Amino acid sequence: MKMLIVGCGRVGSTLANLYDKSGHEVSVVDEDEGAAMRLEPEFRGSFFNGVGLDVRVLRDAGIEDTEVCLVATDGDNTNLVVAQIAREQFHIPCVVVRVFDPNRAKFFEARGLKVICPVALTADLMHQAVSDFRGEEDVE
Amino acid sequence: MKMLIVGCGRVGSTLANLYDKSGHEVSVVDEDEGAAMRLEPEFRGSFFNGVGLDVRVLRDAGIEDTEVCLVATDGDNTNLVVAQIAREQFHIPCVVVRVFDPNRAKFFEARGLKVICPVALTADLMHQAVSDFRGEEDVE
Repeated sequence: MKMLIVGCGRVGSTLANLYDKSGHEVSVVDEDEGAAMRLEPEFRGSFFNGVGLDVRVLRDAGIEDTEVCLVATDGDNTNLVVAQIAREQFHIPCVVVRVFDPNRAKFFEARGLKVICPVALTADLMHQAVSDFRGEEDVE
Repeated sequence: MKMLIVGCGRVGSTLANLYDKSGHEVSVVDEDEGAAMRLEPEFRGSFFNGVGLDVRVLRDAGIEDTEVCLVATDGDNTNLVVAQIAREQFHIPCVVVRVFDPNRAKFFEARGLKVICPVALTADLMHQAVSDFRGEEDVE
């Protein structure tokens, strides 16, 4: 499987290392060259230093024939624009994007993007932990 | 239920507003006074401007007789220290802490803290979304 990962922070690099180890062809883009340090020494994929919003960078990183695009830079706006470029312009069949802001996450999910919102997930799980402590299904 | 929330960012304020609406007694601590803006106008709980690492601030915010302490400032170190103060010094029965670094999250979870790690959650869910796309149980 050919995979493009935009953003090589903790999430992006975790996934890049994981899929590389599993034998997939992984390209990673990050605007910070130092982010490549998060890739393991055994990483056999490619790292491209550049801004994910730059279509030339995405082309260099092989977006044109990638099957899966995972987007997890620090910035919600960047992530949402890159995810839409991947979907609309390059017709990548599987695009998954991290969005911190729960409102924007809901908005774009309703428009068909596959969105992961860590803020909503964390709040939900903390709420669940309190419910478990109280032995209730729902403390609301 | 008496509840103390340390850190009034997106996660902390979401939970503070939720539990306040449900009729619980909520105290919130944040070192940034402006963070109180995230609490809804109808919020009836208390907001304390101060550093969560300062035990006097925690006492002012009512830690001594709180049942639940949720810790979600921006900083993993702060969060881990506050969670341990809540558990060891004040014997709060339910302490839940957000930790971004997956390694530290695992380390402290193994020592009995209830830890939520958004980075690990996001990576897991992105991985799951790719597996769903490929129609496999596990792409590894």
